[in-house]
Amino acid sequence: MSLNTFGHLFRVTTWGESHGPAIGCTVDGCPPGIALCEADLQPWLDRRRPGQSRFTTQRREADQVRILSGVFEGQTTGTPIQLMIENTDQRSKDYGAIARQFRPGHADVAYHLKYGIRDHRGGGRSSARETAARVAAGGVARAVLAALAPGLTITGYLLRIGDKPVDPARFDRDEIGRNPFWCPDPVMAAEWEGYMDELRHAHDSAGAVIEVVAEGVPPGLGAPLYGKLDADLAAAMMSINAVKGVEIGEGMAAAALRGSANADEMEMRGGQLHFRTNHAGGILGGISTGQPVVCRFAVKPTSSILTPRDSVDVTGQAVEVVTRGRHDPCVGIRAVPVGEAMMACVLADHLLMDRGQTGGRRGTIGPG
Amino acid sequence: MSLNTFGHLFRVTTWGESHGPAIGCTVDGCPPGIALCEADLQPWLDRRRPGQSRFTTQRREADQVRILSGVFEGQTTGTPIQLMIENTDQRSKDYGAIARQFRPGHADVAYHLKYGIRDHRGGGRSSARETAARVAAGGVARAVLAALAPGLTITGYLLRIGDKPVDPARFDRDEIGRNPFWCPDPVMAAEWEGYMDELRHAHDSAGAVIEVVAEGVPPGLGAPLYGKLDADLAAAMMSINAVKGVEIGEGMAAAALRGSANADEMEMRGGQLHFRTNHAGGILGGISTGQPVVCRFAVKPTSSILTPRDSVDVTGQAVEVVTRGRHDPCVGIRAVPVGEAMMACVLADHLLMDRGQTGGRRGTIGPG
Amino acid sequence: MSLNTFGHLFRVTTWGESHGPAIGCTVDGCPPGIALCEADLQPWLDRRRPGQSRFTTQRREADQVRILSGVFEGQTTGTPIQLMIENTDQRSKDYGAIARQFRPGHADVAYHLKYGIRDHRGGGRSSARETAARVAAGGVARAVLAALAPGLTITGYLLRIGDKPVDPARFDRDEIGRNPFWCPDPVMAAEWEGYMDELRHAHDSAGAVIEVVAEGVPPGLGAPLYGKLDADLAAAMMSINAVKGVEIGEGMAAAALRGSANADEMEMRGGQLHFRTNHAGGILGGISTGQPVVCRFAVKPTSSILTPRDSVDVTGQAVEVVTRGRHDPCVGIRAVPVGEAMMACVLADHLLMDRGQTGGRRGTIGPG
Amino acid sequence: MSLNTFGHLFRVTTWGESHGPAIGCTVDGCPPGIALCEADLQPWLDRRRPGQSRFTTQRREADQVRILSGVFEGQTTGTPIQLMIENTDQRSKDYGAIARQFRPGHADVAYHLKYGIRDHRGGGRSSARETAARVAAGGVARAVLAALAPGLTITGYLLRIGDKPVDPARFDRDEIGRNPFWCPDPVMAAEWEGYMDELRHAHDSAGAVIEVVAEGVPPGLGAPLYGKLDADLAAAMMSINAVKGVEIGEGMAAAALRGSANADEMEMRGGQLHFRTNHAGGILGGISTGQPVVCRFAVKPTSSILTPRDSVDVTGQAVEVVTRGRHDPCVGIRAVPVGEAMMACVLADHLLMDRGQTGGRRGTIGPG
Repeated sequence: MSLNTFGHLFRVTTWGESHGPAIGCTVDGCPPGIALCEADLQPWLDRRRPGQSRFTTQRREADQVRILSGVFEGQTTGTPIQLMIENTDQRSKDYGAIARQFRPGHADVAYHLKYGIRDHRGGGRSSARETAARVAAGGVARAVLAALAPGLTITGYLLRIGDKPVDPARFDRDEIGRNPFWCPDPVMAAEWEGYMDELRHAHDSAGAVIEVVAEGVPPGLGAPLYGKLDADLAAAMMSINAVKGVEIGEGMAAAALRGSANADEMEMRGGQLHFRTNHAGGILGGISTGQPVVCRFAVKPTSSILTPRDSVDVTGQAVEVVTRGRHDPCVGIRAVPVGEAMMACVLADHLLMDRGQTGGRRGTIGPG
Repeated sequence: MSLNTFGHLFRVTTWGESHGPAIGCTVDGCPPGIALCEADLQPWLDRRRPGQSRFTTQRREADQVRILSGVFEGQTTGTPIQLMIENTDQRSKDYGAIARQFRPGHADVAYHLKYGIRDHRGGGRSSARETAARVAAGGVARAVLAALAPGLTITGYLLRIGDKPVDPARFDRDEIGRNPFWCPDPVMAAEWEGYMDELRHAHDSAGAVIEVVAEGVPPGLGAPLYGKLDADLAAAMMSINAVKGVEIGEGMAAAALRGSANADEMEMRGGQLHFRTNHAGGILGGISTGQPVVCRFAVKPTSSILTPRDSVDVTGQAVEVVTRGRHDPCVGIRAVPVGEAMMACVLADHLLMDRGQTGGRRGTIGPG
Repeated sequence: MSLNTFGHLFRVTTWGESHGPAIGCTVDGCPPGIALCEADLQPWLDRRRPGQSRFTTQRREADQVRILSGVFEGQTTGTPIQLMIENTDQRSKDYGAIARQFRPGHADVAYHLKYGIRDHRGGGRSSARETAARVAAGGVARAVLAALAPGLTITGYLLRIGDKPVDPARFDRDEIGRNPFWCPDPVMAAEWEGYMDELRHAHDSAGAVIEVVAEGVPPGLGAPLYGKLDADLAAAMMSINAVKGVEIGEGMAAAALRGSANADEMEMRGGQLHFRTNHAGGILGGISTGQPVVCRFAVKPTSSILTPRDSVDVTGQAVEVVTRGRHDPCVGIRAVPVGEAMMACVLADHLLMDRGQTGGRRGTIGPG
Repeated sequence: MSLNTFGHLFRVTTWGESHGPAIGCTVDGCPPGIALCEADLQPWLDRRRPGQSRFTTQRREADQVRILSGVFEGQTTGTPIQLMIENTDQRSKDYGAIARQFRPGHADVAYHLKYGIRDHRGGGRSSARETAARVAAGGVARAVLAALAPGLTITGYLLRIGDKPVDPARFDRDEIGRNPFWCPDPVMAAEWEGYMDELRHAHDSAGAVIEVVAEGVPPGLGAPLYGKLDADLAAAMMSINAVKGVEIGEGMAAAALRGSANADEMEMRGGQLHFRTNHAGGILGGISTGQPVVCRFAVKPTSSILTPRDSVDVTGQAVEVVTRGRHDPCVGIRAVPVGEAMMACVLADHLLMDRGQTGGRRGTIGPG
């Protein structure tokens, strides 16, 4: 990862600001001959698109993605794929007041201290709007995975909003798409509705925990020691706006376990290697084992709230910041498709990396 | 990060296996004119060295680091610094039984599936022994930081072993060096002694949570969006053996907070920008703010235990694995100096990156 | 350099095909606070633009560059700068006949063999049209150099077309801009006019040698051993379409020199280090010395000619290829601004790299 | 390429100074399961080793390479391969006089200006001794190529020393190994013997042109636009000490050709694509075509000569430099195995890169 590029062979470079004319990304290193068109990408963007329920920002963006290069007659050509999404509803005037103020919890002050200049309109480069470009890139990655690792699926959902966690006993994968929260627990989904309204009335916001699971991941992805699959996933997820923690498998809770409880025992089932548990989250020594890859990350509560907060402006004057504009009370909701996209990109990248180094050579387990 | 290299400008490439003749690393991109000798590096290695208390592995390694290049007459020259540590106490025979078995919780099976071949002796490349090279590199990074960011300090300590967390009310930084656990809580340090003995008798092990804090970090380090300081820290920490979760500031707990509680308010104090709290862990938008950079990570319990565990061998036969050899009941203890080293390397790298891009240009806050 | 990205800190990623909707590039790592607008970039593009004289392709492209991100209120912000140039005059029908044929001297066959698919329209990704994006990026690099290395100038010109070289005795820098060939020799410029007409009537084309000189380059740029300034220049120039050779200073002719003739002697003049000659082309050990950096490259003759050439099609049938369409009889002419742009990008990149690693620390020569 | 690392997937990081305890390199990304031992590498080093004939430096180095990691039971494991060569005959006292002087034609002054400090002993990092590490890495690359592209051969030879070029009419590949000059022309080889003696008596030196040809290269290697095979070769060769020019195929001479003469016509022969000529040097659009890859580079004359040369010292005093010590009158001779090694590394890297991106997918030519 380097500045605005991530990935080794399947490399994504994003660009654009919240209130500029457009945002986008270049996907370089994509294999040739993969079927791809704009209609393949749009559904992923639509999932992330703002204004789809009353629980997300009311900014209205069409988020129409255009493929400007790298695809010819419906197939990728192996050359860079440029994806562009025009910004259509910027309303910069909403942000005028904060051109010289630093919103608590925002990147404003950090950009100012580092660069001495910042595009303050809608957060500029640090806006979550940039994640639309990631989702578009993730769509390309999914097309690659569909071709190279058929059967691989990626599923993201919320495990918690604020102090309201999902009940694992009620986990129902089919429920995820049925509510506006990507919530696998129908009871909690209903509860979150009221919770969102309460937060809005309280002029406040809440954080969230997102889990992304990839099933059908081939064993052998990940290149120790610093190109480990989990290290790249950690970087990818931590690079998403507002993320403050990343976990693989048991995550932070692994610290509280004993070795006899944590290490996943193995056996053969139907001639295949089988792990009895998945505390490891599908990764050992930085390499996928064939088990589901399980990654979680925490998103902090939206810092853009109507509750007044103390801060300073560029001259050092004390100011009280009230962030108007159209903001998500829980940005974690729209982080679900973003987390899925980052998972897709990391897996596509490591699939190509592994194919490059090992050529798909694989150790086998079984009678010689 | 790419395979066995991490960092952008200050780049570390490690090499070596647990039971090969030596391990080491190349530190490339180090600024010239930094005072450096082997005696500057050795103390950091001594802190990580095995066999220093009865709570860590009894393997006896001198861990003497040699500088083979890049230093001339006591100063770095700007050319690659090669650091080598010879392995002196390998006892490969301890590991013979597992040449064809896959230890649960270990990288054995993942390396086998990916590469079709592995150096099984002591875990080979996946052994925690590799972290000695990181600690050596971290020593170079500390020398760079001492020259370029005087006053910057890095402090690591354990916050938890197994189900026994430190009591924040008893946090005493001076205590950290006084016990064999890097524990900031004297009461808990005493309790951990008994806990370690209990684990050993139970033929079991425990995980740990380590916190690493860097104070005096200049604002402006970190390059959004994929070279974010927190993204690089996440990758760096997650790349350490056995780490399953990484947090910045509030970390996973940020999900449970409300926006009004999480965003750190700002004010001027003595003409300087001051944050009233540090939920952000010193990083906003991927860029350091000048507050302490706070990073935590969880280490899973040692998988090498005497308790028998079910597994399979390379032919698919069921086997019962008992890991003899000399292992830490809690590898988290020795992960403290490793985490510090990774923090040092990431900060040194971003200091150079920031100097390269911005030249130290900084936005100021205060009366014009 | 990696696939479609070049540069270390100042990184340029280009995208786009000859007959797609647009081409462009992302410039990442640009320092903040550099004055920049579209009008700063357009003049460089206008110099490369086709259809400006009867000696270059008659394709008519406005080559209007748009800045889509990374610039705010006339200054760079330090975030990625997206530059886009729409393709307006594609006339794909000119190329229909060659969809299944492989033009001798072109990348057609190589793309087919590698990717199994290619955008044949106008050469697709391998078209020299891509160099417009390089020139745009070079404009950004020039703005960076103007700010960080005032006085640095970059001058490109033709030294040869076909078998007609410039006479060094008539070298006149002021002449370069006065003729359509960037020719520093007024006599030869006149001769080339007739030569171009002759080539056109002969349905043939000619190669060229371009020299690019950078004066006022600070000493210390270039990072041995594989980030050498000359190695990066060699890669940058060789990556330009149709380039087959790159030279620094004496270049290939250095082989014929004796050591006593080649090594540039040094003396002090006015308290400054002075080299009596510049056989080295301003680079020793991969590092700039402060002398003019002199780089030459050879461009092969345009392969798109009206003279019939033998080839095969995708089925292996023998075909006779006559390339119609609108082509430059000597692509080397328009390679001058491209070579200048690559020089600018490489120097800007190394300026940032050097500042990052050494902070501008410099050894001095003179009385203590 | 970045500082002391080159390659994308097959990455080589070299380290070490001429008069330090050792030099070496880390080869990262090597495929697993490749047969490799020290005896496979030593012959390549022996070819480059000094002191083998009276025409190269009389420094006596055993150049024994040791494999410290990444190989287990005679096979590569896919983890970093550390190669170390101890320096045994440094004689630093030969160099004492030049600690404060800048030798004309050497990197001394450039290193001083950039770093403010340099290991002056034997040229330190800028010594041609570093190329031993490249040759060792090239040995690993050759083992990879032998496994993945059987039949691929790499042959280097001298085409010119000083003003004495080989006569193409006498080119005899079998002759190359029969003389101490890697000369394919037996008449010229004899003439060079006398020429070397003459140079030595004249206290002077000469440059050389080396050609390296790779035959049996699979089509499809090289990733346009900035990871082009020719761009990477240009960087690789230009990074070798004393190289001032690099050519592919016709090279600089392509400029003097007409398009009708330069573009290689194609036909089918025995059902296979056949090019009638190879002006392109086996690369079109940055991608290998299956023809022999032909690369040439020029090495400047050794700057270390006994003829006095004017220069300055660090205080700015005029000095007369006479370089004693043991130097090659033509460093180009020993550059042959170095050029071969770089060719091997670049090809191995691109083979893995291509396998990663395209999976060996290939367009075919022939009846459907």
